[in-house]
Parts: sequence; structure tokens; C-alpha cells
Amino acid sequence: MRVAIQGERGSFSHAATDKLYKDAELVCCETFADTFAALRRGRAEAAVLPFENALFGSIHQNYDLLMRSRARVVGEVFRRIELCLLAPRPGAIARGASVLVHPVAQGQCGVFLRRHRLRAVLAADTAGAVRTLMEGKSEAQYAIASALAGELYGASAVSRGIEDDARNFTRFLAIGSARTLRRVKQPSFKTSLAFVLPNRAGALFKALGCFSLRDIDLAKLESRPMKGRPFEYVFYLDALARQELPAMQHALGHLGEFAEKVSILGCYPRAEVP
Amino acid sequence: MRVAIQGERGSFSHAATDKLYKDAELVCCETFADTFAALRRGRAEAAVLPFENALFGSIHQNYDLLMRSRARVVGEVFRRIELCLLAPRPGAIARGASVLVHPVAQGQCGVFLRRHRLRAVLAADTAGAVRTLMEGKSEAQYAIASALAGELYGASAVSRGIEDDARNFTRFLAIGSARTLRRVKQPSFKTSLAFVLPNRAGALFKALGCFSLRDIDLAKLESRPMKGRPFEYVFYLDALARQELPAMQHALGHLGEFAEKVSILGCYPRAEVP
Repeated sequence: MRVAIQGERGSFSHAATDKLYKDAELVCCETFADTFAALRRGRAEAAVLPFENALFGSIHQNYDLLMRSRARVVGEVFRRIELCLLAPRPGAIARGASVLVHPVAQGQCGVFLRRHRLRAVLAADTAGAVRTLMEGKSEAQYAIASALAGELYGASAVSRGIEDDARNFTRFLAIGSARTLRRVKQPSFKTSLAFVLPNRAGALFKALGCFSLRDIDLAKLESRPMKGRPFEYVFYLDALARQELPAMQHALGHLGEFAEKVSILGCYPRAEVP
Repeated sequence: MRVAIQGERGSFSHAATDKLYKDAELVCCETFADTFAALRRGRAEAAVLPFENALFGSIHQNYDLLMRSRARVVGEVFRRIELCLLAPRPGAIARGASVLVHPVAQGQCGVFLRRHRLRAVLAADTAGAVRTLMEGKSEAQYAIASALAGELYGASAVSRGIEDDARNFTRFLAIGSARTLRRVKQPSFKTSLAFVLPNRAGALFKALGCFSLRDIDLAKLESRPMKGRPFEYVFYLDALARQELPAMQHALGHLGEFAEKVSILGCYPRAEVP
């Protein structure tokens, strides 16, 4: 199976794909939009993309692309964003050495970098930093990236979990057709939807009532202002129920009675937050 | 008045500060945590920080820091994240030239960079890119940054609004004590809160009822899984009402009857989404 990701081999999207699909063939894309395009053009059967980060919130860009796409959510997985200090050979950390690092990773490892007085040399992406290090194309002694990137390029993890905040994890969603639905043993299901409500006081209360009055639990609810329509919001909601369940069908019908638009983003086996 | 920001002069936080407080003296900090620390230690009377981006969602890190701080939200402002191609002198864009750019800005200007075949040279931050360009410390011909950064360092904006998605705006909040509350003419108020609900079906529906049954409109609602407590969520909610309003006082009291924790993040004059 071919799976499209944004980024290259060794990225966190690659690690998430490994967890969702065994032995997938990666189709590496430059941007999120390119990744959806690869799926649309049949260059991949599924795509694995980040949708939510514990420190930086929902990636609205991917929600927008998903809503414009005909593909649906077919699986989810949570990955901790664990960064490692990688070197060509194992050994103690040399104080004052220089390290190839993507600026976002640099921001996430400030405490570690200061403690060891490491000097940052900017790199365009985490996996690329390790490759540059291992090919000897930089004078830097270290690179910061995922453990997977280290393994791929044969680097040694001199220190693991060097990020300031260990609670940094990302929720990845697999996008595809019904054929690529992730199969797991004894799944419990999640149904993700997006809907737009008319600008009336209490509209959201009524919308939640569709689910609560039918004892359907929710796992996510988020409002987002709509472009060009002040005071109007699009909502993302995850319900802990299978779409086919009669109660869920009734809830969706009820919501449709007054919501301006309801999009079912997908129904898929639910993963646990680590 | 001294205002702490994350980043340096010419950053988007600087532009947001200009809009909120005239003639503020900037206290530039390296990280979000440093910015809150500057406020706590009295090195600044207020701090201006990004809390939400139209493409990348809520900045949970700043919500966490705010909840641990004794300071409160005293103002808000929305800023469009408009990027410019800056040069030492005005002129036509030279194809194939090299441009100093922060990787996040690079990701946001992919279409423009490809169209003009510009070659990216990485920079640690947008304002720093312009400074490096203007000091002649790089062989690059251009830098990508805000119009404000261009003005500060005397660069010419060769092209404006070069980002792929013009809907990219950020909501900044001013944090401080009641003394620094933003004064505007004929304000309408927003009250921001965070609360934790017990893990029971329908708990959120009941929480929204506290407001909806009292005809209080909401402007934001977001759930976020709590670290180390699976199935428990912290909610962020913005109500379009002044905290002192009797209906709002009753709603907050009602919410307190069953919520595990309610934190009032602040009550402040509301700004319009651009």
C-alpha cells in the first residue's frame, strides 16, 4: 500500500504511518496540499497527516483540505514528539559543540541546548539535519531529530527525550477510501464531523443536545470562526459512536434539522491518547 | 509602559503590541515562558502573546502558562500575518536570487518562492533575517518578514502579501493586572474562562446550558484532553458578556456547582476578527 505524507523519511509523519500501516510504501510530499493531491490523483491509497498537537492545537489547514476532499478519515494514532540528540558515534555530549537543528525543534529543546551550551546551526527539516550530519556535509557534531530518523541514517542517539515538554504529542489521522479503513481487533469507533450553525444564541447548546439527549459521548469539540462571515462558526466534533448506530443516525438527522451544513469526516477505530 | 513579548522588534507580536498600547517600551524575551516570567518579576507591566492562529489553532502552551499565572487577560487584538519580500533598495524581483527566510515563513510562501524561483537561505527568525540582510552579513539579496520589520531596518518592500493563504491571522491577548486593562470607546466585553468537567456523558451539554439558558452568547469553545487523565477535558470558553453582569455571575455560579474547576482568565474589551 502506498501512503502519502508531508515531509520525508524519518519524519514524525513517517513514524505515525509505521504505526497505522505495516510495510507501507511512502509517497513523500512537500506540503499538506500536495499530500491531499497525491491521494486525489491516485499516487497513494491513503495519506497520514497531523491534525492536532498537544501544545499547538488543531491544524485547521488540514481540516480545510479534508473538507474539500472526497476522501474520509479511516484511522487515527497519537505519537509523542520525542526529540533525540544524534551523533555519528555514541559518546558523551561535548559542551559547546554545534548541532544541526530545525528552528521549531530548537524552540522545543531550549533548556537542553542551554544546559550543554550547544550552538545551533539551522537546518530546513529534522530528518534532513541527520542526513547532512551523516554525509559529513556540515561541520556540526550533532543533529536533533526523531529516533526513527537516527535509525534510518545510522546515527547514534546520544540523548533521548531532550524536548522541554514531554507532553508534546500529535494526533495523526489516516485519510483514504473505505477500502483503506484501518482494521483493529475489537475496535471502539469514533465518528468525526464538521458543521456550521446559524448565528443564534443557544445554537451550539441545541447541537450538543442532539448527542447528549441520546447518551452519545463526545471526545472533541472546537469552534472556529468562518472566513468572511463574522459571528459564524464551523464546529469540529468527535462522537464516541459508530456512524451506523441508530442513536447516532437519529442524532445526525436531528442536527441536520437546524445546522446549515453537516459534513461527516469519517468513522474509524479509535486510538488511545498516550 | 513596558510590554513583554516573545521575539524581537519587528516581530508580529511587536505589531500587535503597537495596536494595543501606543508607545510601549518593548521587553523582548526568548520564549513564551520567559515572557510570563518578565511579567511576574515586574520587568514589564503587561505581556502580549499569540493565543490562536487561523491556520494552526490555539497555542495551548500559552493557555497553560496563563492558567499558572496570577495575571489576567486585559485586551485582545487580531493581526493578519502578512509577509513581504524585502530588499535593501526598491526594484523588480530578480529571478533565481536567494532570500533569507525562517522555515515557517518559507512554508507559508511556497507558491511565491516557486513562481520567482527564489532560493531559500534559512534564518532563525523573520526580523533577524531583515537585520542580517541590511547589515550586509549575508550574500542573499532578499529577506522575508513583516512590513514593520522592513520599516525598522530601512528595507524596501518589493512585494507584499506574498503568503499562500491570506486568511492567516493571529489572535493576540494582552496579559497584565487590572491597571493595564485596555481602554476603548464604547467597549463590548468578552469574558474568557477555562474549566474542567467530570467524566460524565452530557457534562458539556449541561455546562453550555448555564450560559444558553441565560441568553449569553459564546464566541469560542474548545475541548482539550488533560495530561495524565484520559477521558478528562479542560475547556476554553469565551462568553460575550461582562463578568460583572448578573446573568454572567449566575451562569458562573451554576457552572461551579458541577465543574471540577473554573478559572476566570479575564474580562476585557472585545476586538473584531478582521
